[in-house]
Amino acid sequence: MIPERLDLLHRGKAKDVYRTSSEGLLWVHFRDDLTAGDGAKKGREEGKGTAAGLISAYLFGYLAERGIPTHQVEVVGPRDVVVKALTMVPVEVVVRQVAAGSLVKRLGLPPGEILPRPLVEWYYKRDDLGDPLLAEDHVLLLNLLTRVEMETLRTMALRIFRLLAQRFWKAGLLLVDMKLEFGRHPEEGFLLADEISPDTCRLWDQATGASLDKDLFRKGLSPIVPAYREVLRRLGLEA
Amino acid sequence: MIPERLDLLHRGKAKDVYRTSSEGLLWVHFRDDLTAGDGAKKGREEGKGTAAGLISAYLFGYLAERGIPTHQVEVVGPRDVVVKALTMVPVEVVVRQVAAGSLVKRLGLPPGEILPRPLVEWYYKRDDLGDPLLAEDHVLLLNLLTRVEMETLRTMALRIFRLLAQRFWKAGLLLVDMKLEFGRHPEEGFLLADEISPDTCRLWDQATGASLDKDLFRKGLSPIVPAYREVLRRLGLEA
Repeated sequence: MIPERLDLLHRGKAKDVYRTSSEGLLWVHFRDDLTAGDGAKKGREEGKGTAAGLISAYLFGYLAERGIPTHQVEVVGPRDVVVKALTMVPVEVVVRQVAAGSLVKRLGLPPGEILPRPLVEWYYKRDDLGDPLLAEDHVLLLNLLTRVEMETLRTMALRIFRLLAQRFWKAGLLLVDMKLEFGRHPEEGFLLADEISPDTCRLWDQATGASLDKDLFRKGLSPIVPAYREVLRRLGLEA
Repeated sequence: MIPERLDLLHRGKAKDVYRTSSEGLLWVHFRDDLTAGDGAKKGREEGKGTAAGLISAYLFGYLAERGIPTHQVEVVGPRDVVVKALTMVPVEVVVRQVAAGSLVKRLGLPPGEILPRPLVEWYYKRDDLGDPLLAEDHVLLLNLLTRVEMETLRTMALRIFRLLAQRFWKAGLLLVDMKLEFGRHPEEGFLLADEISPDTCRLWDQATGASLDKDLFRKGLSPIVPAYREVLRRLGLEA
């Protein structure tokens, strides 16, 4: 049974979160807004919320079927999902398989270089600080996670990355890197939360290397909705 | 026997390194130059090379007497030392006990907060990239050190920090944080190298919290040589 959508609880950069008539459940609505650089660059494209919402709902379902515990309870529309309420972990987990973005800018790796193994990174969810990279000792110092919890999330993140990299590869796409967020559920422990879409992944065309993700917006290259729709199409979600 | 100083091998930001007549030994000369922000800010103060050189030579001797293997072979003048030639590790090891500098700016910790235990951080020695912070997985990815080598250096760095924090405390100074560099010697393994001085440490007056280190230059607060001389005086190295 779909719960009723109640009042707005939180307005994020690209999603709105509402209370619902069911305790312990929230309603997430994907907006058309786009931000980059921790909100420094802002934009809006009609159809973006629907494209990201459809992709994310599909991928969360795909992962759930393969044993990954996620927050997703019910897809209630192309850009609306009902999810479990969680206490969010204030750390973003980034998994990378190919050098791009900050790995190129910060560490000087050649763009496109395949890493010998997937790399897991931790970022502090603090917009006011620009979401800084954290070493594991920083995570411990700030009491964000214990060492055991970090190992749990690392294992989950690597498993999710492998499952999705395979799925995207079959769709002609290279999964370059991916940002994940997790939350704690009172009974179920850590659940995968937030979204997984071209807003939170780098996806390159397998053949040409062309970006089909938010990098198009970051670099001001072109409208992004056609690229997001292409991802939908390749995943078999749009005619 | 003191080897002869030969040709200039490397001009660093604050030190010159010369070849010597003894194979395997180098001659380091502390200049009066000051830089901050990876060389973005530059200055020069007469007497700075001597003050930093005297402090560093003393501290390397102090550590050697307490079992820390260092590169220092002979102090040949107030700003000149003969050292063992090493293959430098391209990673700076930073140990912190009090929140200051990038721990405040990057992670939002309150300045002056005492950490529950000393924190060890790794920075990539790459001026062109601004010496970025590295997580341990980055150190492994870039093949800079193995996991075992990281543990060896971490243990050495923590031991050095504890010895020096005690020594400075007796001199009325709080050792806030410290940057260390290590090199590999063909027979002796990792040796402590570079320098340890108010150029590479944060030292605060125990009673007032006033900086007696390069932060004075970073913040453009005052000439630094009087502060460096005060450190010398408190260590009992100057009348």
